[in-house]
Amino acid sequence: MNHMAEKEGVVFIGTKPPMSYVLAVVTQFREGNKIVQVKARGKAISRAVDVSEIVKNRFLEGLKIGTIKTGTESLKGERGDTINVSLIEIPLIKDDEVIKQKPKKKEEKKE
Amino acid sequence: MNHMAEKEGVVFIGTKPPMSYVLAVVTQFREGNKIVQVKARGKAISRAVDVSEIVKNRFLEGLKIGTIKTGTESLKGERGDTINVSLIEIPLIKDDEVIKQKPKKKEEKKE
Repeated sequence: MNHMAEKEGVVFIGTKPPMSYVLAVVTQFREGNKIVQVKARGKAISRAVDVSEIVKNRFLEGLKIGTIKTGTESLKGERGDTINVSLIEIPLIKDDEVIKQKPKKKEEKKE
Repeated sequence: MNHMAEKEGVVFIGTKPPMSYVLAVVTQFREGNKIVQVKARGKAISRAVDVSEIVKNRFLEGLKIGTIKTGTESLKGERGDTINVSLIEIPLIKDDEVIKQKPKKKEEKKE
């Protein structure tokens, strides 16, 4: 809907301690991203929630968690067998930028 | 908004294999619940997503996943220390009831 492209970052959660991903998320916001997608699959999903909660509660005030999506990915095993793995995507949204940009309302009114 | 109270069930995810929780969820829908909240904390969060995906993909057609909530709970340790644990709540919504109520769709249009 918004014609203004939001700068969006992604952090994939693996097996490292949560704090390393927390720092990655905070860094991506500092680099100018307004949304950072925290993505994980399988057992790392719990850690993705931990990371999002830590960023929200301890590092960035006014951060909002957007609509969390889940899904299933089918991976092919070596013997042709299929393994289903769950996915999660947690969008972290820094909305103070939105407030700052509200003033410029009608930039150009195409006729 | 809806003045009709929806029957709502809850399944808490622990350390058992996912299938036992899948059965618990399916049973709660059979008992007449329209919403079943799948709740978990800590490492069980990944399993909660697995359970929801399995129910959606393999057991109940037309099931929808509502707005997933996350949170943090502070537990007190024995020595007065505080441990923060992440939470998740995944609402599974069976909407065939809605479809059933649409019924008068002129089933027989043959003249």
